[in-house]
Amino acid sequence: MVQKLGQLPADIKKQKLFLDDPTLKDDIPISYMSHKELYEHSVKKATIIAQKIRQIRNDGEDSVDVYNAILGGSLGSALIKEGNPMTLHFVMFVPTIMGQGTMDQQMEWLPKAWDCSIIGTYAQTELGHGTFLRGLETRADYDASTQEFVLNTPTLTAYKWWPGGLGHTANYAIVVAQLYTKGEFRGLAPFIVQLRDEETHEPLPGIDVGEIGTKLGMKSVNNGYLGLKNLRIPLKNMLMKNQQVLPDGTYVAPKNTVLTYGTMMFVRCALIRDTAQSLAKASTIATRYSAVRRQSPIDPNLPEPQIMDHTTQQLKLFPQIAKAIVIKTTGDNVWNMYSNVSGELEQGILERLPEMHALSCCLKAICSADAASGVELCRLACGGHGYMDCSNFPTIYGMATAVCTYEGENTVMLLQTARYLVKVYAQALNGEKLVPTVAYISEAVKETEFVNFDGSLQSIVKAFEFVAANKIRIAYERMEKLRKQGYGQEVAANMCGIELTQAADLHGRAFLALSAYTELLAIARGVSNAMGDVLKTILELYLIDACLNRVGDFLRFINFSGTEIDNLEIRLENCLKQLRPNAVALVDGFDLHDRVLDSALGASDGNVYERIFEWAKKSPLNTESVNKSFHQHLKPFMKANL
Amino acid sequence: MVQKLGQLPADIKKQKLFLDDPTLKDDIPISYMSHKELYEHSVKKATIIAQKIRQIRNDGEDSVDVYNAILGGSLGSALIKEGNPMTLHFVMFVPTIMGQGTMDQQMEWLPKAWDCSIIGTYAQTELGHGTFLRGLETRADYDASTQEFVLNTPTLTAYKWWPGGLGHTANYAIVVAQLYTKGEFRGLAPFIVQLRDEETHEPLPGIDVGEIGTKLGMKSVNNGYLGLKNLRIPLKNMLMKNQQVLPDGTYVAPKNTVLTYGTMMFVRCALIRDTAQSLAKASTIATRYSAVRRQSPIDPNLPEPQIMDHTTQQLKLFPQIAKAIVIKTTGDNVWNMYSNVSGELEQGILERLPEMHALSCCLKAICSADAASGVELCRLACGGHGYMDCSNFPTIYGMATAVCTYEGENTVMLLQTARYLVKVYAQALNGEKLVPTVAYISEAVKETEFVNFDGSLQSIVKAFEFVAANKIRIAYERMEKLRKQGYGQEVAANMCGIELTQAADLHGRAFLALSAYTELLAIARGVSNAMGDVLKTILELYLIDACLNRVGDFLRFINFSGTEIDNLEIRLENCLKQLRPNAVALVDGFDLHDRVLDSALGASDGNVYERIFEWAKKSPLNTESVNKSFHQHLKPFMKANL
Repeated sequence: MVQKLGQLPADIKKQKLFLDDPTLKDDIPISYMSHKELYEHSVKKATIIAQKIRQIRNDGEDSVDVYNAILGGSLGSALIKEGNPMTLHFVMFVPTIMGQGTMDQQMEWLPKAWDCSIIGTYAQTELGHGTFLRGLETRADYDASTQEFVLNTPTLTAYKWWPGGLGHTANYAIVVAQLYTKGEFRGLAPFIVQLRDEETHEPLPGIDVGEIGTKLGMKSVNNGYLGLKNLRIPLKNMLMKNQQVLPDGTYVAPKNTVLTYGTMMFVRCALIRDTAQSLAKASTIATRYSAVRRQSPIDPNLPEPQIMDHTTQQLKLFPQIAKAIVIKTTGDNVWNMYSNVSGELEQGILERLPEMHALSCCLKAICSADAASGVELCRLACGGHGYMDCSNFPTIYGMATAVCTYEGENTVMLLQTARYLVKVYAQALNGEKLVPTVAYISEAVKETEFVNFDGSLQSIVKAFEFVAANKIRIAYERMEKLRKQGYGQEVAANMCGIELTQAADLHGRAFLALSAYTELLAIARGVSNAMGDVLKTILELYLIDACLNRVGDFLRFINFSGTEIDNLEIRLENCLKQLRPNAVALVDGFDLHDRVLDSALGASDGNVYERIFEWAKKSPLNTESVNKSFHQHLKPFMKANL
Repeated sequence: MVQKLGQLPADIKKQKLFLDDPTLKDDIPISYMSHKELYEHSVKKATIIAQKIRQIRNDGEDSVDVYNAILGGSLGSALIKEGNPMTLHFVMFVPTIMGQGTMDQQMEWLPKAWDCSIIGTYAQTELGHGTFLRGLETRADYDASTQEFVLNTPTLTAYKWWPGGLGHTANYAIVVAQLYTKGEFRGLAPFIVQLRDEETHEPLPGIDVGEIGTKLGMKSVNNGYLGLKNLRIPLKNMLMKNQQVLPDGTYVAPKNTVLTYGTMMFVRCALIRDTAQSLAKASTIATRYSAVRRQSPIDPNLPEPQIMDHTTQQLKLFPQIAKAIVIKTTGDNVWNMYSNVSGELEQGILERLPEMHALSCCLKAICSADAASGVELCRLACGGHGYMDCSNFPTIYGMATAVCTYEGENTVMLLQTARYLVKVYAQALNGEKLVPTVAYISEAVKETEFVNFDGSLQSIVKAFEFVAANKIRIAYERMEKLRKQGYGQEVAANMCGIELTQAADLHGRAFLALSAYTELLAIARGVSNAMGDVLKTILELYLIDACLNRVGDFLRFINFSGTEIDNLEIRLENCLKQLRPNAVALVDGFDLHDRVLDSALGASDGNVYERIFEWAKKSPLNTESVNKSFHQHLKPFMKANL
């Protein structure tokens, strides 16, 4: 179970195909390169990787898991750590054609796309609009006289902004635009747009394309911008599986708009597992470093201890290890739920769709926020050395924090979940039967007081649900009050934004608590007693830490005494103490390859200081004892006053 | 008051001297440069700046404030945003000679240093040891036969690591080493060491010097490493104001070791004000952006609002504005306290030193942690655009988070404060009179219950003190219990690490609450009614937000009802609502120059999208429509399967 976090492609042969290829190793750390050098270096590597993918595909050995590993968080980050400029070709361009193209369109485009004789990206977000899709400004006007769409980005803010690989890599894109036919607005639609000449790579007339510049992270993704001016594309370039435009401009609406939720849920469920990966990397690095680094005596008669012996250091690290495990198992859990719901969807059963949507939204928000702050906590726990790029924390953080924003900004995600929860609360008041993940709300409606808190783990899980239900109640009651005062639903929702986001947060945390409890105990039953005990300690640490982090909410709704809090704090410290001897083994169990970690602080050999020094020696500034700026600037200045 | 945050050198002529000099402007954003290019670019600018400093000095117009502005967070960041490689020359090398050199030594070194005919740095931290100074390994053995010290870094971990400018800029350094004379260990001492030949800049024999490589932030500071092998320096190169080595090797110990606390307190008090500067920058950028960006309708019948109209956005931004103001005023307050204590010190009055030391430690930790997380909150509140380097958030964060580690790692700082508080708690139990900043502990010892919480701001301040006192009590009682069980002081302190850091955190927050209350109300009395009301709302927002962020502690020790928490939440929302119309004016009041902000999102003209686009256009990748990598790598790959 724990091992899966570091999973490279199961096939060792495939792993070696990538990791043993000397052309995929960096001679000098990429952080020493200029932005342009990094791009050129990354494109070179991206084509080597894509050539291997082509080979694997030709051998019939490809699968979704293989693509995920090669382009994603495990093997992918070992190959191009700041992001592959061709990722969107494989994970968005090709899948969108498969999912939204007709049979004819798939026949036309997929062979070229799979072969990489064209390279595509996916252009949706604009300079002026991201999460709120209805606000997108790019438009496609159908001209029946020529059977063409005329695409335009009518304002500066309508420019497409952010698509990976759009800058200088892709020559095609799926462009999402507001569709107008017969002068009427029809909603959003996806179009295949050629951006660059296939021979010269020069941008085509009507296309203004380039890259958006440097960023906090994902530095080699080649994110781009795209402006369109009266660009004409043929009718057949609109992806028409779900909605159609007929040659005369007649619009045929999609049968089922909820199906689009499927893709969003798919991506968000996948992201939950990615966040676990970031935490696993960061906690591995910080834990290993804390076993090597010695500083500040605890007992004045003994030598300086490993810094992991400091209780305050344990409190920083071990909850991150626990979170990595809990988020991973919860991610797997949610992934299975998604598969079931997705299967039902295809049979036209939509019953669990809103529930699943609501759950994936809040978990995406919570797990990405917790992962990002956990990565930073691990970095800070490594002191100054965590601040150096050779720790790899800056790159891991850049990747982790980006998840808080993309695929739905976290606060918007929580508000979407909250909207659902408030509806469900009304159903609970009406005595309606609730779907499984919110069933706890019915209980809380019946029992207004939480009794018999006995400190057991099950009791903590129940308490989380009770607190979540009460947070939802408060949001619901405030909303109702405002509605009665005459405010519209949306205005009231904005006024209650704080209560709503808090309710959604607690709902997600209650689900995580229950999932941790169920999954970890189930796994513990199937392993050795010793391993089972460690997992139970991990579970206890996770639940108590989560509870103490929200202790204000617990005290507000449950009649906790000071002694009970004292007890929880003592138990937390005991968990830390018990995990101390197993900490390094636990992160070793994540089985993250040294190339995936890419950290002088976290390599499996523990040669921290040697590796830091080696890395510094690779700085181009260190290849000369005197930099030319001494002669050009320093010396003339220093001698000027003599 | 508020304005002071953005303060450039008061003398407009001096400000123009720097900001209007075209040689100090960057033609292309520095994030596009390679590490080496950035260094060369920064040294060039550093010499131009230092030449202007030389001029100001020659004109007799220099002062501590002028140096702080030119090298520090305001003007300094507008000139070399990722850090000036010569800063340590002015803020550590020169002051250390002034503070620790004898008259003769000052006569010898200061003229050269002030003239910059030599450039120095300060080398203390090593690869293996930072905050725990006694663990430093670099040693200086006195050889009476030649009247020289022999300096060595006997291990890899003894290498000096981190000093700014040490890599390739400085030719001198003050090196801190463990002193041995007559074969006996004498403690730490500072030595002036020449690193490089003054003509050729080549490292001298016995010196292994270079730079440590790239980092999360402070990218142009040229942090370096230094190894010493049997380096002989004359006796007179040890700074001997406080302690002496006589020619025969006799050691004369310093009269008063506590004096070294002075410098540490000085730096930490200065850092508190720096953290306010980071928050002021970040909240200015995010607030201005939130007034330009429109997204997601609130009322479905109205156009998309400024995102600042979303309550959840207000909750992200406005507390950061309030914190910037409160930390700044508290910083000024503490600065005045420091000046008094410092004056007393010179008269030999040491009474308030431990108190001042304890206060500066926890405030450094709290303010730097709050500033760093506040900067990230502001960045995330700007969505994807905050992630771009053109927002300037990545640089501001890199600077802000570094403060959590340098000049005493934050957790160690909290533990130092806690050690003091636990001692004071014992004094309070004994009925001793306590010094002013901890006097509240005596009251809490007498009154074990907090009565008459009336929700007033004064009541919240009092409640903070009561909660802090109780946190200290819990740490004290647990320590005592462990001591009685036979654990030594230090081992018990480690076991109570969590309780101790929490106690120190609450102590600092109680001081911030009281300081906010006292200072802001005092300022409010001296301004217009309208401005006074805004300041009172800022104060209310700050206190309620701080209280709700620690609501678990409040509920634990004070008999708050659910209704009281409801009321605080409603008041928080009212504060946000009241501040909404004044938010842009408030951050405008920080008066931060556009060059200081250096942000496409936060410039005073509000041309967010135009500036983002302009910045992207400056990318060297965008100067060519087709990058050479297309011909070298992409095209051969794309055509390979055809």
